[in-house]
Amino acid sequence: MSSDLHPWAETLSALHDQVWTRLIRGVHDRRAAARHPTLATVSADGTPQARTIVLRAADRCAASLRFYTDRHSAKVAELRAQPKASLHIWDNSAHLQMRLLADVSFVMDEDVTAIWASLPEVARHSYGSTPAPGQPLRDALDYQKTPDPAAFIVGVLALQEMDILHLGPQHRRARFSRAKGWQGVWCAP
Amino acid sequence: MSSDLHPWAETLSALHDQVWTRLIRGVHDRRAAARHPTLATVSADGTPQARTIVLRAADRCAASLRFYTDRHSAKVAELRAQPKASLHIWDNSAHLQMRLLADVSFVMDEDVTAIWASLPEVARHSYGSTPAPGQPLRDALDYQKTPDPAAFIVGVLALQEMDILHLGPQHRRARFSRAKGWQGVWCAP
Repeated sequence: MSSDLHPWAETLSALHDQVWTRLIRGVHDRRAAARHPTLATVSADGTPQARTIVLRAADRCAASLRFYTDRHSAKVAELRAQPKASLHIWDNSAHLQMRLLADVSFVMDEDVTAIWASLPEVARHSYGSTPAPGQPLRDALDYQKTPDPAAFIVGVLALQEMDILHLGPQHRRARFSRAKGWQGVWCAP
Repeated sequence: MSSDLHPWAETLSALHDQVWTRLIRGVHDRRAAARHPTLATVSADGTPQARTIVLRAADRCAASLRFYTDRHSAKVAELRAQPKASLHIWDNSAHLQMRLLADVSFVMDEDVTAIWASLPEVARHSYGSTPAPGQPLRDALDYQKTPDPAAFIVGVLALQEMDILHLGPQHRRARFSRAKGWQGVWCAP
């Protein structure tokens, strides 16, 4: 009856701990599944959108995550109109699906200037593009990437709910919410 | 100036071919990245939702994909209210991100009965749950999975747009749309 490989899936608190262990690992380990979550948003016409992002920070006390992006990208426009996102991670090594619903805001202060200053030159090329990301081109390489601190923006995901599914000898699924102090409840997988 | 590893990224038609090669591989190869896309939808309150699905069919002529699910799952209710989905695949071996926007419908005819009949017994346990998927439980394993043909439903994703990003020595991004016969246009990555 026990999930031999993953005993952390057997109690709500151990499962919640495991989610944060995996998220924090994603910030520091390029090969961790949580390094590259899928960020789902809703566009102005009500259609869902999804793309890979890089997880840059995970703060368990605040229950928040951070990512970097170009201020001129479609996802920034979408999130300013509808500041809700769902982050999706499938961690194959743990047989664990993490679905994280969040309120999203953007940071634009001295903190961002300090983060920019700490980025290696090669990383800065991801922020600043002519034309802007998504604009049509006459040819595939007819664009320039020029590091632009004014294009650099930090997104903050304030987690509201987690829907966690573990696929084991018997599947287990739990929901945790900020409103209930993250204590969690089992639900049918 | 060429993407040595992936010459198929250099023309719009070769890139479009490559997307379909990868999707079709996902149907037949359990280890292919396209086997397990992330399906993003919008819930009734306007928040984005995302979860892993299994790709079951890919038809290039119709530009459609299929997945199986439990009729009582939240995604079916979400898709009946807002029949748009975005499918997201990151194929690490190809350095390729596929974002596929689709209109979604459900099949409920003899075809579905035939698919059910062809499923192995173990696979049928994914369709039919008491209580329904997502319902709260008193304990983690306080549910039964009983194969139920009436719970089995086939989702059809009629693709409308593809946003394809290849990360190479120089990044390339293209959009293809059904409305323009899938001919494609390059855009800024």
